This record gives sequence, C-alpha cells and structure tokens, in this order.
Amino acid sequence: MKNSIVTSFLGLFFMIGYGQQVKIEPPNWWVGMKHNTIQLMLHRENISAYDVTIKSNEVKLLKSQKTDNPNYLFLTLDLSKLTGAGQIPLHFSAKTEKDFVLNYEIKEREDKALQIKGFDASDVIYLITPDRFANGDPSNDIVKGLNETQIDRKDDYGRHGGDLKGIIDHLDYIEEMGFTAIWPTPLLINDMKSSSYHGYAITDLYAVDPRFGTLEEYIDLSRKAKEKGIKLVMDQVANHIGREHWWMKDLPSKDWVNYQDEFLNDSTVVTNHRRTVNQDIYASEKDKKLMAEGWFVPSMPDMNQKNPLLAEYLIQNSIWWIETLQLGGIRQDTYPYPDKEFMSDWAGSIMKEYPEFSIVGEEWSYNPLLVGYWQQGAKNKDGYESNLTSTMDFPLQKAIVDGVNEEESWGTGLVKIYEGLANDFAYAHPEKIMAFLDNHDMDRAFTQLKKDPVKLKMALGYLLALPRIPQIYYGTEVLIENSAKPGDHGLIRTDFPGGWKGDKVNAFTGNGLSKDQLEMQSFLKNVLRYRKNSQAIHQGKLIHFGPENGVYALFRISEEETYIVILNKNEKAIELDLSRFEEIGLNDKKVRDIISGSTKTWNKSLKIGQKGITLLSTKLN
Amino acid sequence: MKNSIVTSFLGLFFMIGYGQQVKIEPPNWWVGMKHNTIQLMLHRENISAYDVTIKSNEVKLLKSQKTDNPNYLFLTLDLSKLTGAGQIPLHFSAKTEKDFVLNYEIKEREDKALQIKGFDASDVIYLITPDRFANGDPSNDIVKGLNETQIDRKDDYGRHGGDLKGIIDHLDYIEEMGFTAIWPTPLLINDMKSSSYHGYAITDLYAVDPRFGTLEEYIDLSRKAKEKGIKLVMDQVANHIGREHWWMKDLPSKDWVNYQDEFLNDSTVVTNHRRTVNQDIYASEKDKKLMAEGWFVPSMPDMNQKNPLLAEYLIQNSIWWIETLQLGGIRQDTYPYPDKEFMSDWAGSIMKEYPEFSIVGEEWSYNPLLVGYWQQGAKNKDGYESNLTSTMDFPLQKAIVDGVNEEESWGTGLVKIYEGLANDFAYAHPEKIMAFLDNHDMDRAFTQLKKDPVKLKMALGYLLALPRIPQIYYGTEVLIENSAKPGDHGLIRTDFPGGWKGDKVNAFTGNGLSKDQLEMQSFLKNVLRYRKNSQAIHQGKLIHFGPENGVYALFRISEEETYIVILNKNEKAIELDLSRFEEIGLNDKKVRDIISGSTKTWNKSLKIGQKGITLLSTKLN
Repeated sequence: MKNSIVTSFLGLFFMIGYGQQVKIEPPNWWVGMKHNTIQLMLHRENISAYDVTIKSNEVKLLKSQKTDNPNYLFLTLDLSKLTGAGQIPLHFSAKTEKDFVLNYEIKEREDKALQIKGFDASDVIYLITPDRFANGDPSNDIVKGLNETQIDRKDDYGRHGGDLKGIIDHLDYIEEMGFTAIWPTPLLINDMKSSSYHGYAITDLYAVDPRFGTLEEYIDLSRKAKEKGIKLVMDQVANHIGREHWWMKDLPSKDWVNYQDEFLNDSTVVTNHRRTVNQDIYASEKDKKLMAEGWFVPSMPDMNQKNPLLAEYLIQNSIWWIETLQLGGIRQDTYPYPDKEFMSDWAGSIMKEYPEFSIVGEEWSYNPLLVGYWQQGAKNKDGYESNLTSTMDFPLQKAIVDGVNEEESWGTGLVKIYEGLANDFAYAHPEKIMAFLDNHDMDRAFTQLKKDPVKLKMALGYLLALPRIPQIYYGTEVLIENSAKPGDHGLIRTDFPGGWKGDKVNAFTGNGLSKDQLEMQSFLKNVLRYRKNSQAIHQGKLIHFGPENGVYALFRISEEETYIVILNKNEKAIELDLSRFEEIGLNDKKVRDIISGSTKTWNKSLKIGQKGITLLSTKLN
Repeated sequence: MKNSIVTSFLGLFFMIGYGQQVKIEPPNWWVGMKHNTIQLMLHRENISAYDVTIKSNEVKLLKSQKTDNPNYLFLTLDLSKLTGAGQIPLHFSAKTEKDFVLNYEIKEREDKALQIKGFDASDVIYLITPDRFANGDPSNDIVKGLNETQIDRKDDYGRHGGDLKGIIDHLDYIEEMGFTAIWPTPLLINDMKSSSYHGYAITDLYAVDPRFGTLEEYIDLSRKAKEKGIKLVMDQVANHIGREHWWMKDLPSKDWVNYQDEFLNDSTVVTNHRRTVNQDIYASEKDKKLMAEGWFVPSMPDMNQKNPLLAEYLIQNSIWWIETLQLGGIRQDTYPYPDKEFMSDWAGSIMKEYPEFSIVGEEWSYNPLLVGYWQQGAKNKDGYESNLTSTMDFPLQKAIVDGVNEEESWGTGLVKIYEGLANDFAYAHPEKIMAFLDNHDMDRAFTQLKKDPVKLKMALGYLLALPRIPQIYYGTEVLIENSAKPGDHGLIRTDFPGGWKGDKVNAFTGNGLSKDQLEMQSFLKNVLRYRKNSQAIHQGKLIHFGPENGVYALFRISEEETYIVILNKNEKAIELDLSRFEEIGLNDKKVRDIISGSTKTWNKSLKIGQKGITLLSTKLN
C-alpha cells in the first residue's frame, strides 16, 4: 500500500501551481506519526472563500475553519489511515474564484526518528550563542532584504556573523572537549530591526535565519553531531514572537495575539513578570492575566495560546522541528509566561509522540518550590501536570556560586551548596534537572567567581559530579568573562576566540591562550571525559557530608566505581581525617586523582592541597 | 460499676506505705482514655528484684520489664476494661525483700476533657517568658535546696522572679488586649546551676518549677484563662533534658541518653545542627546520627527516643499534661532534633487521643521546603507523615521583616512579602501554620524594624490579616526592644514593665508609657479586637495584588465582610487608583478604617496617608 496516494491521485498533480501563492504550514508532515490529526494553516488573500475537498480513502478532511480574517483558512486532516508517503491533493473551489489544487507533502519518516531520545544525566550540554561562536560562512553575514543588515563585531548588540557552519566546523572541538550535546540559542529567523542576533524574537516559526544558514545546514549540523554522539537541543519560544513576524502584518484572527487591540492602536501592554502567580493560590485574576498575556517586551508580541488554532499550530511546529532535525531535546524559553494549561498540552503532545524525549523549561527563580512545580511528577496540590521532563536549577546555580565565593562559617560558604543540594528531596526527578553556573542571560561564571580559576574549577568540578544534566556556556573553558560590564548581555555573549578568521587567539587550537586558559580547558576536558563513561556519575548513589573545617566531600557510588569530590576552602594544604567517611567503604582502596593521574591509598587520612577541588576515582585507568 | 476497683480491693489498702520510696510515673492516669495501655516507670533501689501482680478483672498487667539498671522497673497495664476511677493496688513480692503494695491512682476525667480543642486561625497567641512577665508571688522567688537560688533582675541570664501567679494576675490585661491564647515558655522545673530561667533544661518532666509556683497554680492558670476564652499552650521538649535531671544520677538504662558513654566519661558529643539531614536523600549516616543523637548543648542530654520505654514515657507525659491542664495546644521545641519516627508516633498518639488538638513544632529554617515537610498532610516523597498540625513560619517572618525594611524596587521591599506568601501553594495547610515577627530566640520585632513604630504597625497589621495562627511576643505592644545588645537572649527576654512591684513604668495600666508605646498598644488592641470576630480573617478567601508603586494590597473576603490591608511605602500621601482591584467587587461600597473609625466610599480612588498601613473593613461597626 505504500505510495498509494501518489498513484491514485497522480492525474491531479498537473493542477499544482495555482496554489503557489498559498503559504501552508506546516510545510509537510510524515506518515506513521502518533500525532496524525493535523491542522494546516493556509494564508493567501481571501483564501477563506474556498471550499476544500480531499478525494481519498486514506485522508479525511475533518474540518475547514475560517477566522475573522478572510485571508486564513485552517484545515484539519485525519492521517490515521495513511499507509504511505506522497502528495495529498487539496482541491480548492469557490464561486467567484478559479479552482486550483495544492499538493500537500507527506514524507516517509527516517528510521532514526523512531529512536529519538532526549538528553539525560549522562550528557553534558554545551550552550552556544550561534552569532558569537564561529563564523563558518562569511558569505551569509549580510543578507539583503532583511531589516538588520549590518554586521559589527564591535557592537555588543549587533550581529557578529557566527553561523551554523561555524558550529558544524567545530564539532570536532566540542567532541574533543567531551560535550555530548549542544544547545544553540534560537536559529530561526529574527527579521528584527535591531538586536536580531539573540534569536528570541522569531519572525517565522518555520524558517532558519539565512544569516545563520539554511535548513539543510541545520539538518547537516544535527546529522554530523549525531555521528559524534552529540545531541542537538533546539531552543524554542512558545510565548512570543518578534514584532516583525509576518503574522503581525495580517493577523490570523482578532485574538491571535494577547492585547492585540493595543498593538493595533500602536501601543503595547507589557507583562508584570510576576511569575509566582502561576502557583500562588491568592493571586488576583488581574495579575494572572497580565502575567500570562502581557508582552515580554514591547518588541515581542505575546501569543494567545488559548486560541485552539494557534495552540495546535505551536504543537505541530515543535513536532515538525523534532522530526525534521532529529532533535535530542528542546529548551523552551520563558516557561512560566505562556498559558500554563497550553504548555502542559504542548509538552504532553511532544512526550506522547516521543516518549524518550527531553524538554527543559526555563523558570528563572531561585525558589526551589517554583522550579519543582514545573517538573512532571511533582505532586502539585492544584493537580497541575506539566509533562515537562526538565527544569533549570537556578537555585543551585546561586548556591554554588555563593558557596564557593563566601567565607566559611557555620552558616555560610560550602554549607550553602550542601543545603542547596539537600533540597533534592522535594523534586520529582532531580537527575533530570539541568544544572549550570551561568548561561546567556547571566554574568559569566568566571565573572561571578571573581576571576579566580581555582573557584571556577571548584564550581565546575562539583557541578559535573551531580545527578543533574549539566550545561556549560561556550567559552567558560577559556575563561571568557564580562567583568568590564556586569550584566551586559552583549558582552556576556562574547565572540569565541578563534571563531573568526584573523582572530589572534584561537581557543580551538590553543594558539595564543594564556596558561590559565589552557589549564582550565585541560581541566574541563579531563573532567568531561571522565564523566562521559562514569556510571557512578550518571546514575550512582550520592552521599555527601556536611562541610566541616572548610572541607565538603561528596561521593558518587556505583557497583563498579566510586567517584569522590572534595572541596577545600582552606588556604593551606591539609591532612584530611578519613574516619568520618567510613560508611563509604573505601578503606585501604587505591584511588586515582583524575586530573593529575596519581594514585593514593584511602586510609586514615589524605593530604589535600591548598584551596581547590580534588577529584578521585576508584577506577584506576 | 463506678469505683468498682476501689470496692473490690478495699482490703488491700492497708498495705500502702511500704511503697512510699518508690517513684512512679506518670503519677496517675484516667479512666476512659483512648490511650489505655499505659506504662509505669518505677524507680527505687533494686526495684527490679520484685515480681508484680495485679488481682483484678478490669486491669491486666501485660508486661513487667527490667532494664540493665536494677533500680528501675517498667509495668505495662491494660486499662481498656476499666469501668471507673479508683486505686489500682500493685502487689510487689521478692524472694529476699519484704512484700508491699502500691496503689496507683486512676482518676475520673473532667467533662471538659472530652472537648479539648487546640488553637486555630481564629486565635492570636501571646508568647510569654514567665520569669520576665510578672512577679505575682515574691515568696517563691528563691526556693531553698535548688541549684540556682539567686534572683537578680540586673543579670540578663539570671532569674528575675516572674511566675505563674504573675500571669494569672494579668489575664485581664491579656484578654483586654484581645489575645485568645497564651504560650508561656516551659514552666517545668529546671534545677540547673545557671540560666535556669529559660526553662528548656527540664530536670523533672512531671514537676512544675517551684519558683514559678505549684501544679495547682498551673491548673488555676488554665482554668481562669479558659473562663476568659484564652487557651493555654504548653511548651514541651521531647529532644533533651537538663543535665541535672534526676535520671542523670541513676540512668534508667545503658541507652537512655544518646552518647551516654561519653557523658559517663565526663564528656559530651554535641549535635551538628545540620537539620537538613532529616529530608536530604543524600545525607550520610554519620551526619544523620550526629544530628539526631548529639546533644543540643553540653548542658542538655539528648534523649534516646529509639528506646521504646523512653518513647512511651514521653508520649504519656505529654498526654498527662494535656489532660491535667486541659491544654489548648502544645508547642514542641527543637522539632527536627529528636528521632523523627518517634516524633511522628508522639504527635500521632496525641492527635489520636485529642483529634481537635493542635501541636506546633519548631523548625527554625527559612526554607519553606523544610517547614512544609513537617506538617501533616504534606505529600512527602519519603512517605513521612508527621502528624504535626502546625509548624512555624520562619520563612514568612524573614520575608515580612525584610519586606518592610527594604527600599522598594521591582525585586525588593514589599514584593518579598508578596512572594513569601505566594509559597502557601506548597503547604498542606497554610492556615494552620503559626506566624510571627519574633520570638524569645530572636531580636525583638521593634529592633528588627529599626525602632520605627510605623514599620512595626505595618508588619503587625499584615501578620494579623493572614490565614495563619499569629503569635506575638509579650511586650511588642509597648515597643520592647534589644538594640543595645542585638542577639542577646537575656535582653530579648526583658522584664515586662509593671510586672514587678515598684516598676516606674506600668504597661498593664499605661502609667509612664510614652506616646509611641501607648499608640502601639492601642493599635494592636484595635486590630486584635477586630480580628477576634472577623470571619473574613479566620477563614475568608485571600486575594492579593503584586506590589506596584510602593503599594501592596491584600483582601480577605467572607460572605459577610471584606477586610482590606494596604501597605504604603511612599513617604508622601497618595491617591490610590482602585480600578486595579475591580474583581474584589467593592465599587461604591462604604468601608471603615478600623483604627480611626472613619468611613469612606470605595470608588475610583482612595486617599492613602504617608508610609504606613491602612486597615479597612466593609463591616461598618
């Protein structure tokens, strides 16, 4: 029965062409998906004047919906009986207009699509701002016809020319470092007049930004990364679009965008950013509405996900990208801002299609109660089921940085980290939470840690030992920092040295790096490579001991291996009494320092160097 | 069948007297209790040499248990078939000793015992340090034979002479102020060599400290308070005892006290105070043991509640006091320190006996995850059921103080309070949590609030509007503060002015109080009296609005009444636009200022005075 549609409707293909002006989204679908009732958005002048029919035993047109804008038509197709790929001819007829046929493409799924799997605690994610990582193709730096055409590497908020090819070209480096996943910030088109480089003001949810490259390059990135065991995580935005999105010139319906009337009257209503209203049982309706429906910023219209046509559009859009790019995960922006019931449906639809997938949502809060609320499995009193596998560990991010920076006392310093991790009891799945020291919206870790490489090693080494999905921002390994302008997003997203032809320093090759930079790169590489094959870190039991005398020890224990992290805040080297750790069962065992490679015997006491991190393993090679 | 035991065993009464040297605890029990399998602790030299028999159809001796100390014997009696009060003769016989009989008293329950009810959100609790409130009976200031005999009002850590009679004498004042419950810190004997005034080093769990008065006076306090509608809350300590407890001279067993060997060798092992180990899924056994079993301080031996004899002793002790004093609640000290499984049994046993009772446990943590864990109804992942009705809201205490003190900005000031309260979504029963601005272990609220009466009014007025059980520390109403020595426990527990004969200032009568003091006292009285009969505050719906422009509004809404709290941080008076609060449905309604008594119409906008609190009600009289 394969390709049966193509065969049976072959005669109708001649009529394609009349529909060329019609924008149709999603641009294609696949046979054999669980999500097999799909909604097509059609856009063309007065398209709603047409009746649409499908003559097929396999595909049924369930609904044809008009909105208050005659230029849009939404068709709902039942593909559940589809037996093969091919073109589905959609017959358009209207009283006053010429009939035409449009063929809608149904593709065969790639075999690998059936094995789509998300990231997990065995991964380490490299977060990249594509415009600032490497300029692999200078020919796409400036693309005519777009609103922002300049590139200027001296302008923190201008485009610098980094692109998909830049990432593809350096997958070797990423693999060599030991990362197993990459999360580039959004690569879809941001045809904005300014600051288009960051990617969060998407103006077409089905188009790659040509300054980053083509869809084919995006697919190429995914394929080549996968060959190296590197998962591709896509950064998506369900809350808002860029003000220059094509919808904004011809809005699909009167309620497509929240506070649409104000926009049409040339003003905007901005969100109150009071994220607690999502959980707060006392929140006013007024505050809840403004939080969910207000615009993130005036340049980013807030989508009304309560509109079922838009809701389905967004769900399909995400599935389309997962299937097209064979993704290894999604990072969803500004998670508490869209309608939360929609977000549950959205994540639920994805997880239904890809049960092994991973989605991480951004709730930027230092309150573990809020972070915990959003993870699937949380026993929320209001019954909310998020379907979201992963959240972001802002509370632990702060705890690690504060804990490493602060002076030691009974209640400050390392105990902040110890007590921060102790909150794991309240999370549904701590091991599925993403942990990090910084990201593209925060001061660089090295800046937060007062430009002290020892502190950065402590923080990184600890982070990478946790039952978490660690995420590291590009360039941390070569001490990129932004102390000159704390909080400055443009500077935080500094160009990676060596990403541009003519760069004097090249972090990919090591040329021109300082001793400190080389040492940090090597340290991180060592830790990442160890972590890659460490069952103890991926899924071992964790036992830690409350900090005492400036020393905090944490153990990860699997059947075959024990991994040991010792943070020492003492300025001088110490002799650590090991009797306290007896329950770990390491007595008389040999342990190897994974950085220096030297081995020691775990017995009575251990010499620990001055302030810093010690990483030991019972795996001796 | 009443008094049947007395009748049937009358002939045996003659033998009483031989057992007079025997210490027996609890000193009596009651007929008709649910807890009707009781354990008697008997202490006398070589008591374990005796066999005990009970000749009765109604009382069965289930067990007679010896420990490794021959001076103790534990009898377990089944009272379930008991039909009336009376004396139960216990027959003691031994091969080498003279036989004797000891009558154990079973009392009739008071009718009121069947209606024992704890505190709830309709109450406001007045926390009193008895040694520092009022000296009603100077004759008991010094009691011969006790380890600490001096009194010295100039010594912050010495005894000052306050007592039970002092509280009894001023119940009128407490009622007049509008409090509905009192929580005196422990009144049981602390026969310690120093700092005995605070009460937390109890040396006999069945004896009132004679410097505070007698058991009869304690019962009198309870009865007289109840007549005024004031509940009596008892402060209990299940974690530790005072080092001078009589047990410590003849320990009931080798495992009665934790780290007992060290004590016997003249040293102590102190707890690590790492309270997170109770929840932390990663905590080491070593840390858990030290937390639960280490001594709170060297002067307070840590009881081993894993010893079932001690566990039952403590449970019975609590029930004995509830029944004897007809309590209106228990405050349990240092809740995370004893064995937590025991604490669950302890609270569970009390709640089984008195289903309407209330117990508040002290978890001094600013982390709502920890506070929430201990409240019955929490869906803890580890399955822990605390049976504890109430916890203490340290997180909100800090939020209110910080929020009132801080300068306003998007993320500081009133928003801290707003977001702190928003955490209620995660608590099993927020309305059963105790809230406060300070207590006997913290700087005085007025000190925390920089000695600004306006700030104190804001904090108090807000606190008293919450779905909580508010607790106010004695003297807050007359601005007692400890700025001279921040953190000094002795000074925090300052003498209440007028509690001692000859005091120049008398806060009970108002004599000598400053204008600020009188005004605060009057303010608090107004609020408390309003709260006393406010259904809206006791159980109304709460809606609050995220702070904007330095103003935070909170509404409590019942069918008959809406209560309105407006906190204004602006230095100048403002005209508050009311349109934002439309959903409350107050348009064109009259509202009364509960402090000034003036009425206004809620319409469009409202004049709000400079920095401070506005309390309005739709109840016009």
